[in-house]
Amino acid sequence: MAVERVGFIGLGIMGAPMAANLLKAGFQVTVWNRSPSRTKPLVDSGAKGADSPAAVAAASEVTLSCVTNSADVEEVACGPQGVIHGAHRGSTYIDCSTIAPETARNVARELSARGVDMLDAPVSGGDVGAKAGTLAIMVGGEAPVFERCLPVLQAMGKTIVHVGPNGAGQVVKLCNQVACGLNLLAAAEAINLSRRAGVDPAKMLEVVGAGAAASWMLSNLAPRAVNGDYAPGFMVDLMQKDLRLVLDAANDSHTPLPGTALVSQLFQSIQAEGRGTDGTQSLVDAIAKLAR
Amino acid sequence: MAVERVGFIGLGIMGAPMAANLLKAGFQVTVWNRSPSRTKPLVDSGAKGADSPAAVAAASEVTLSCVTNSADVEEVACGPQGVIHGAHRGSTYIDCSTIAPETARNVARELSARGVDMLDAPVSGGDVGAKAGTLAIMVGGEAPVFERCLPVLQAMGKTIVHVGPNGAGQVVKLCNQVACGLNLLAAAEAINLSRRAGVDPAKMLEVVGAGAAASWMLSNLAPRAVNGDYAPGFMVDLMQKDLRLVLDAANDSHTPLPGTALVSQLFQSIQAEGRGTDGTQSLVDAIAKLAR
Amino acid sequence: MAVERVGFIGLGIMGAPMAANLLKAGFQVTVWNRSPSRTKPLVDSGAKGADSPAAVAAASEVTLSCVTNSADVEEVACGPQGVIHGAHRGSTYIDCSTIAPETARNVARELSARGVDMLDAPVSGGDVGAKAGTLAIMVGGEAPVFERCLPVLQAMGKTIVHVGPNGAGQVVKLCNQVACGLNLLAAAEAINLSRRAGVDPAKMLEVVGAGAAASWMLSNLAPRAVNGDYAPGFMVDLMQKDLRLVLDAANDSHTPLPGTALVSQLFQSIQAEGRGTDGTQSLVDAIAKLAR
Amino acid sequence: MAVERVGFIGLGIMGAPMAANLLKAGFQVTVWNRSPSRTKPLVDSGAKGADSPAAVAAASEVTLSCVTNSADVEEVACGPQGVIHGAHRGSTYIDCSTIAPETARNVARELSARGVDMLDAPVSGGDVGAKAGTLAIMVGGEAPVFERCLPVLQAMGKTIVHVGPNGAGQVVKLCNQVACGLNLLAAAEAINLSRRAGVDPAKMLEVVGAGAAASWMLSNLAPRAVNGDYAPGFMVDLMQKDLRLVLDAANDSHTPLPGTALVSQLFQSIQAEGRGTDGTQSLVDAIAKLAR
Repeated sequence: MAVERVGFIGLGIMGAPMAANLLKAGFQVTVWNRSPSRTKPLVDSGAKGADSPAAVAAASEVTLSCVTNSADVEEVACGPQGVIHGAHRGSTYIDCSTIAPETARNVARELSARGVDMLDAPVSGGDVGAKAGTLAIMVGGEAPVFERCLPVLQAMGKTIVHVGPNGAGQVVKLCNQVACGLNLLAAAEAINLSRRAGVDPAKMLEVVGAGAAASWMLSNLAPRAVNGDYAPGFMVDLMQKDLRLVLDAANDSHTPLPGTALVSQLFQSIQAEGRGTDGTQSLVDAIAKLAR
Repeated sequence: MAVERVGFIGLGIMGAPMAANLLKAGFQVTVWNRSPSRTKPLVDSGAKGADSPAAVAAASEVTLSCVTNSADVEEVACGPQGVIHGAHRGSTYIDCSTIAPETARNVARELSARGVDMLDAPVSGGDVGAKAGTLAIMVGGEAPVFERCLPVLQAMGKTIVHVGPNGAGQVVKLCNQVACGLNLLAAAEAINLSRRAGVDPAKMLEVVGAGAAASWMLSNLAPRAVNGDYAPGFMVDLMQKDLRLVLDAANDSHTPLPGTALVSQLFQSIQAEGRGTDGTQSLVDAIAKLAR
Repeated sequence: MAVERVGFIGLGIMGAPMAANLLKAGFQVTVWNRSPSRTKPLVDSGAKGADSPAAVAAASEVTLSCVTNSADVEEVACGPQGVIHGAHRGSTYIDCSTIAPETARNVARELSARGVDMLDAPVSGGDVGAKAGTLAIMVGGEAPVFERCLPVLQAMGKTIVHVGPNGAGQVVKLCNQVACGLNLLAAAEAINLSRRAGVDPAKMLEVVGAGAAASWMLSNLAPRAVNGDYAPGFMVDLMQKDLRLVLDAANDSHTPLPGTALVSQLFQSIQAEGRGTDGTQSLVDAIAKLAR
Repeated sequence: MAVERVGFIGLGIMGAPMAANLLKAGFQVTVWNRSPSRTKPLVDSGAKGADSPAAVAAASEVTLSCVTNSADVEEVACGPQGVIHGAHRGSTYIDCSTIAPETARNVARELSARGVDMLDAPVSGGDVGAKAGTLAIMVGGEAPVFERCLPVLQAMGKTIVHVGPNGAGQVVKLCNQVACGLNLLAAAEAINLSRRAGVDPAKMLEVVGAGAAASWMLSNLAPRAVNGDYAPGFMVDLMQKDLRLVLDAANDSHTPLPGTALVSQLFQSIQAEGRGTDGTQSLVDAIAKLAR
């Protein structure tokens, strides 16, 4: 029997368009947000408002959340007014936040004890992908739960991969941030070498982006940095939050990541300038600073 | 008046298919190689053999070379039997090797004093791109010379960009190697984090490669490393040669590249195992080694 | 009026000899330890046992603690049976553990509200220095409190410096660990370069340690590593705990420390081998591993 | 039979006081310098001037040199007017410059073919140590040659160690520079962490320098940086020259040195500011720059 009623908790830059896409796909959507004003546009579009995460869960077969950090997920899922107090046995909770894999596993365990399934399903693709419904979604949890919820995920994303048991989705998201950070450093060092050697970095990016050095970062974010455009796609402060999750998880499993550790130190250099809300392409400036 | 007669010096893994594509494109091709046996297949296909770089240049309007390092280019261009001793005034020498930008500028200056133009035109795309005629070619030199030689370059490559004066082509090639190296490190650290956290790296690559973390390296070389396939596209020893050019050039212009310096140290770890002829995807093992 | 009655909480490898030195210096000493068996040797030497941190504080003008981490200090100082519930107004609490500067400041604030002064007084010098009473002690807190407690600290240490307000002692201890870590890396890279170039590292250390490259680590720990002696002075796992405090504190103040970040990743390489209880001189092996 | 007649080639900041100490010790000294004006003070003190390195060698049982780089040593030792053309069979050439181990071995081989012994004997201790005659001298060569020349070396240095065959002296000097560089980075990161956390770095250095984090750099150069004194003991440009020798030698033996590679990149950041003639303590500013 197909899922019809879904809930959405956390209507921020990512969550709001994701919930909107669920509405567009025909689901009955119930929403909640910490600051209630953000629910209005969705209610105007046909969603129902609820007054707690528990109430969202009580009204839904599948309840999703997209919030800021591990502590928020713990609160939303298992806090005094959390999903766990409203969810029916046999319903599913899907968290799309980026959090510690261990937190995802702990929440899954607690919900499982009440007969509620969980998927960790962090996303990649930014607000652009959230609006367009083209997110990449990396999903951890049991295969039958994944299969059952696939139509819900397909309303929000394009590349949707079941990568393993609970926590695995978060692990893959952390791997994603490792690659994003180092691909940005690649662009940053190439741009600076080009500039210092007197070669127009825009021309460099044009040809380098066509071969074995190509990357999404080189094609999409690097040209912005070259043009002095530091408006965020994804903010440095959020990237640092994620890299801290990466380095903590790597520390727990004793996995040395010397490159990622360097990237994180360099992003701190941007934060030290008070530019934590700039986009991640500002990493180019951390390298530039060293050559001044 | 269109170029008809071209020469090619250095018929190695890259040079031989590049020369073959010039033949296919209808140019009259004269060739020379240090070990003469390598000229035979081209001569069998219609090229003429010559007995020195000078003789190649004497027979050609445009003479190309693709050899191993800066010293080889100096020898081939300006040595006792070099291009400079055969080239006609108004002819052009195009070097496709990866060498120090300074060497390229020096050779251009010497040739210029004899009325011979030069382009530095290093390529990216590997033997696969050389055979397919789809190389990216980054060209330094004067604009009219570039325009005049464009049909020759188009016989060998697809993305062909004039990036600045002599030496600029080499600078851009070094930027290319910076980005290749750090994109590989991105893949290496992501793969290791995934594995150590118990998540199948192949699944990780599948979803991570679909979003903002995408790169040519992640899609093309990382899966080989995951499968234990270390056969070279591009060998570690050659990458290290190029990274040394990068770090020397960066040193000369006082451009700190902390990420590239780290990558170079990690490739040394592969060389220390006696695996310098493995493909660059073996960087994954340098990170893996740290977690063993 | 001179301090006569002191308490000591936490009788581990460091705390037990520190408390013993207080006894030897003539103070009346009351002690408590989580596992009570460890109090016996001190009680046999003349200390009184108490059954909680609060009870220790109630019996003391100055109460010291030396425990494992920030959470332990919070428990011992402000937990249900903590110092705060027994300490008299006007008495002093001195914590000698290595913890987050922020935790030290928070505990000081809570105690201050009850009229109890606090010093953060982490130590350096290992169990050897603790036994010999030659510890370096870096003290944060108000100057008059420092002056009043100086005789107590002098019973345990030799170099005792008041470095600033509450938290400053911990900051300086973190700086100490930064320098220890990078000085170890200095020794590790020098030893490996020497060995790989065929030169006896013991001879190298002999002469290098006599000049501008001299360090305590080079003279004291490096020769042990050269001889394959990895018995701990200070264990890798504890060093990593401290480096995590360093990197978290640096992160909070946006202070990039690329060298320390690298050191921490390399220590993880030792932990990955299951050697977290080896001494920190095993960092030499993390570099050696890269060259194998 | 004791050595009586010694020669000295290269009377720079190091060489001039070293030659002066040989005079003071009672040796008959013959000198040569590229710019002849520098010989005068020594001739005034009793040395004889000669008009080429060959002439110095012809007049000496032991000929020393202290020049800038590998190319200078090759010229002075084996060039058209080099030591090799004047030295008697059975005499000894001692080079005190810091050069590539391979160059030292090559020069030794060439001299050996003419019956001339060689020692590579680079020094550490700066102009202060050169004047005071307290240099550390790390000596490569055959043991009997070392024994025979020991009285000559003792006139210039205090810690004099025979570390292995030809080239080994240079290897040990490179190890010395590795340790100097990373010990400086230790001081730089500790100072910056202290400052950013609001703790007076002078007080930090006072206590940290008393324990396990102690180093010559922390005690001698770090306080200068804290006081904004960047006058050279040893200049950044010279340190970078040496670190390039280190990284080249490490590259040749495939010895990954990630910490030293980072130090070298950070020194480039000082050179990029046009401060290559500042003292090496300016590394503190490279870290400071990242936090601005």
